[in-house]
Amino acid sequence: MIIKMKRSATGEQIGTVINRIGEFGLGIRMTITDGHTLLTVTGGDDRLGTWTPIHMPGVESFTLDIEHVLPEKITVSVGGQEIGSDKLCMIAGPRIIESEERIFATARELHKCGIKIMRGGSYSPNTSPYAFRGLESEGLRMLRSAADQYGLLTVSEVVSLAELDNAAKYCDILQIGARNMQNYRLLQAVGKTDKPVMLKRGVAATVDEWLDSAEYILREGNSRVILCERGIRTFETATKSTIDIAAITSVREKSGLPVIVDPSKAAPHGRFVPSLSLASVAAGADGLMIDAHPNPAEALSDSAQQLSFSQLSKLIDSVRYIALAMGKSV
Amino acid sequence: MIIKMKRSATGEQIGTVINRIGEFGLGIRMTITDGHTLLTVTGGDDRLGTWTPIHMPGVESFTLDIEHVLPEKITVSVGGQEIGSDKLCMIAGPRIIESEERIFATARELHKCGIKIMRGGSYSPNTSPYAFRGLESEGLRMLRSAADQYGLLTVSEVVSLAELDNAAKYCDILQIGARNMQNYRLLQAVGKTDKPVMLKRGVAATVDEWLDSAEYILREGNSRVILCERGIRTFETATKSTIDIAAITSVREKSGLPVIVDPSKAAPHGRFVPSLSLASVAAGADGLMIDAHPNPAEALSDSAQQLSFSQLSKLIDSVRYIALAMGKSV
Amino acid sequence: MIIKMKRSATGEQIGTVINRIGEFGLGIRMTITDGHTLLTVTGGDDRLGTWTPIHMPGVESFTLDIEHVLPEKITVSVGGQEIGSDKLCMIAGPRIIESEERIFATARELHKCGIKIMRGGSYSPNTSPYAFRGLESEGLRMLRSAADQYGLLTVSEVVSLAELDNAAKYCDILQIGARNMQNYRLLQAVGKTDKPVMLKRGVAATVDEWLDSAEYILREGNSRVILCERGIRTFETATKSTIDIAAITSVREKSGLPVIVDPSKAAPHGRFVPSLSLASVAAGADGLMIDAHPNPAEALSDSAQQLSFSQLSKLIDSVRYIALAMGKSV
Amino acid sequence: MIIKMKRSATGEQIGTVINRIGEFGLGIRMTITDGHTLLTVTGGDDRLGTWTPIHMPGVESFTLDIEHVLPEKITVSVGGQEIGSDKLCMIAGPRIIESEERIFATARELHKCGIKIMRGGSYSPNTSPYAFRGLESEGLRMLRSAADQYGLLTVSEVVSLAELDNAAKYCDILQIGARNMQNYRLLQAVGKTDKPVMLKRGVAATVDEWLDSAEYILREGNSRVILCERGIRTFETATKSTIDIAAITSVREKSGLPVIVDPSKAAPHGRFVPSLSLASVAAGADGLMIDAHPNPAEALSDSAQQLSFSQLSKLIDSVRYIALAMGKSV
Repeated sequence: MIIKMKRSATGEQIGTVINRIGEFGLGIRMTITDGHTLLTVTGGDDRLGTWTPIHMPGVESFTLDIEHVLPEKITVSVGGQEIGSDKLCMIAGPRIIESEERIFATARELHKCGIKIMRGGSYSPNTSPYAFRGLESEGLRMLRSAADQYGLLTVSEVVSLAELDNAAKYCDILQIGARNMQNYRLLQAVGKTDKPVMLKRGVAATVDEWLDSAEYILREGNSRVILCERGIRTFETATKSTIDIAAITSVREKSGLPVIVDPSKAAPHGRFVPSLSLASVAAGADGLMIDAHPNPAEALSDSAQQLSFSQLSKLIDSVRYIALAMGKSV
Repeated sequence: MIIKMKRSATGEQIGTVINRIGEFGLGIRMTITDGHTLLTVTGGDDRLGTWTPIHMPGVESFTLDIEHVLPEKITVSVGGQEIGSDKLCMIAGPRIIESEERIFATARELHKCGIKIMRGGSYSPNTSPYAFRGLESEGLRMLRSAADQYGLLTVSEVVSLAELDNAAKYCDILQIGARNMQNYRLLQAVGKTDKPVMLKRGVAATVDEWLDSAEYILREGNSRVILCERGIRTFETATKSTIDIAAITSVREKSGLPVIVDPSKAAPHGRFVPSLSLASVAAGADGLMIDAHPNPAEALSDSAQQLSFSQLSKLIDSVRYIALAMGKSV
Repeated sequence: MIIKMKRSATGEQIGTVINRIGEFGLGIRMTITDGHTLLTVTGGDDRLGTWTPIHMPGVESFTLDIEHVLPEKITVSVGGQEIGSDKLCMIAGPRIIESEERIFATARELHKCGIKIMRGGSYSPNTSPYAFRGLESEGLRMLRSAADQYGLLTVSEVVSLAELDNAAKYCDILQIGARNMQNYRLLQAVGKTDKPVMLKRGVAATVDEWLDSAEYILREGNSRVILCERGIRTFETATKSTIDIAAITSVREKSGLPVIVDPSKAAPHGRFVPSLSLASVAAGADGLMIDAHPNPAEALSDSAQQLSFSQLSKLIDSVRYIALAMGKSV
Repeated sequence: MIIKMKRSATGEQIGTVINRIGEFGLGIRMTITDGHTLLTVTGGDDRLGTWTPIHMPGVESFTLDIEHVLPEKITVSVGGQEIGSDKLCMIAGPRIIESEERIFATARELHKCGIKIMRGGSYSPNTSPYAFRGLESEGLRMLRSAADQYGLLTVSEVVSLAELDNAAKYCDILQIGARNMQNYRLLQAVGKTDKPVMLKRGVAATVDEWLDSAEYILREGNSRVILCERGIRTFETATKSTIDIAAITSVREKSGLPVIVDPSKAAPHGRFVPSLSLASVAAGADGLMIDAHPNPAEALSDSAQQLSFSQLSKLIDSVRYIALAMGKSV
């Protein structure tokens, strides 16, 4: 059931409907379309029996048929980019910022390729405590200067509350990593900033849990959430994780949020990145985030998955064709 | 390590090399390219230490670098179609053949859409013993007559040895279903026929296990094997199974066999079929198999996933654009 | 909902109820207790709304509360053993029968340990077509003679219809392997024999699918089905598969069939077998099937998982204590 | 390979060995036994080829055979309890602290059952932002007073750095939840406290990743880490998650840390808790953590999985028998 509230509905009226639904043991997903709050009941309309919300204050109408009601598509504006529009959001850069020289080389090459957003990690959330930990705030500063020199936007992962201020200072988009997808305090904190947030899907998170995590950010008042699919954990070991290509459609059916795909972390080798990228765009993704490095063989982390800039440039040419076939552009 | 045997190598020489590799606890994948048998060592070259096969009788050369050696691409010819070529293999039809009238209606519509291969099940391998079981040999006969009237090829699942003769009589391509992917007797039996075999991936099969099953068919002398990805079983319940889009690249790296994708069984609803289809083609699939039905709402099985012919026709138009972007055609 | 039919209910009356339930899009699990057919509705009573079957011919009563209605416990009698009783069913032997000498040595040792049922494979359903294939009918003959000499019962896997007659001739219990759990023709064929069937769970089968496969055997009139849990496929690679210890309780709640556990196939090493065995018995399993070999280091297959007889004997001593704690005996 | 360092080895010498191993692309797990640092090479000794560490400064010896070298068993002392000893660690209490009255009732009942550690959540890390959030610091205060009145120890989850001081003030054991298993900043922070830490396994974490997370705590100097298995995410939906019973043996082989099992979160219903508990103890677990509530039907969270105190008391009686069979006590 989707309940459409009146434009004039008060927060209290909306809350009363949510609580009533909760009494049935059901959940709610809240979206706003054209000034109306839409409450989508999750967990199975069956439990509602013959109940309807039609006499509750603030309710305009409701529908049992969710088949053809796609949530309104949301675009996220950042520095002149419209993420979620027909222009694909292309992000690239190294998994880890390694040196001033390399990040400047990266920025120069991205600029040449026409890519507008540079990513780079500065606090590595490594599984092992003995791995390289990143350049921390110094890395973020380098990322910013390199980006500024070439007119790029920046995105980097916020690994904990302690690094949030620094990340907000140097980055245009804050990334929440897969391991932190259910770190609710962190979600709430980025939800209170005025920065767009790229929320990666946890490796064992269902689409519904991922959207629940997005909700933690949205309800703090930050409506600029970008979802990022990066593969789920399955029994298959031929790849590092399994890109859930259908999740692009699932989130489109359940929310209006833009969704991009990061194929590099799933790929066992950079050779898999092009096909996963093209597939993602053909499945309707709003963009891509690609690991790229001036010299992949020398990368300190995940060197096998990183593309060189010549590989990246060639990939973008292929993406351009698929985008065109989809009525979009790069 | 890939070991290239001489064109003149005898079966005994090849067997000796395979046995020697086996002593290291490693496996072999055998392919034939341009008259040479290629033996790809599986399980990790590390165990070979400094051993090389170079002095063994029949060995021409070997290489340790599998990075840039893609197996030669194989095409499967059937009734004028070249599956695995730049022309996509498009298959459609109902999951289950329900009546003479409906299968003729299907054939007529496929013909209009330009689809050359009709699928239709006649022995339903249902999980529950109480479900509809199919029209059995009568259904296969109907499939054949309908196909003949409109100049189509046919594909249908062989569910056991007992049905093989009938299937071979009425079908141009024999399908092995996901549940039978490791039914080795059945694999051997279809390997002895002169019909192309479409081998579906088991829902819990790794790419390597799937290729091992293909090997069971190939080694009986039947070289016309077409792989079909149909989704693997994961924790995600938003879809019925998770299409492993990277498997298309994995099988391309490990074998030359053509691979098509069946998106319908994974889809929770027909609305997911178009995006999964486009993604598959963009990822490099050699074709698609789509559930289509004259009137999905009345289908006896999986009605939610089946496309109507108008939906199918629209999908093919979209596929055409992606195919074009990939340098292919429908 | 569980519907209890009258003792006098006809097949047609039962069929009418099943069909009516099917119209709601729900399934049925059928069990017989004390002469009454019980129909358990599967898929969610919610869809039934306010409908009840109470006025349908042949219905005695129905209950909505499945909480405390455990299906009646079934025991399977074979050669003086009561599988499913308070006496645990202990099965051991080699994965593959390798030679007359070794299988006689095995039988002698099992006899010494007090184990009454010997297993041994004779047709290896290997993933790779190049692995050792077993001694086939000759192996079954050896298994039988060795068993007879020491008064043991035998169990061996039937890999296809072609081997069924031979297996039925030499074995007291027919085993259906995990790969064949949904080979419905084979299930129906063993369902027509007068031999007890041990049905292994497929590596990607849910408990419900496993019980559906059991139903394929039961409905052919063979009521002697023994379930065997052997681990499911998950992302974890520390073990070969993940023993689903809760499945013992799940099948107990949903059926009365006896369930044993085969821990060896899941174990990365024989060292894991004792803890998995004890856990299984403590979780309520009706027995164990253990890989054991006169000399594990020389075993042709899965040597790391096989126990020596001294290890087996020590394990049985530990099992005895847990059995005692559970009010059972070995 | 396990490398045993001299007792006199310096941090620099140990670091040099670790770095050398890293150059092979391999990892290290570090444990300390009897004053010696043991470095276990992870990722496959094969890559080391013929290299040995024997001439490196600070190395005492090394062994290639890890078969029979179990890490030394560690016990964690807290308030007179020795977790990891032959006396099982029994923890029980409500998932969420709901009121002063209920938590005192809980403490009284646990005391009667002979349970020495009470759990209770005060900051609910719910997937949905609209669910009940817990009583926060007020709840922790109640937990402490109730525990003090009945001489119990307390454990509660620390959901973020902001709550750490409060948790450390009121709790004897700090719990890290499954969702935070890879929240490295939080792991480091609890690693700096003087409180024992119970580290739950993430639902998609391999055993190795779980132990890597434990390492994050250990290397900060806090050696009192207790592992807690609570089920992993698989395709099976008959249970909420799949208890990985073999993980108890896996962590025992790879570390000396005590491991307990929390069966309640995996159980679809409280009826599953007893069998999962007995299985865990039989598999070698060092204890159990059980959801218990004065009146499960009224519980605000997960009411179906919580045991009443009469059920809990009955369960403990059964555990006692299994413990006895294992040479342990409750």
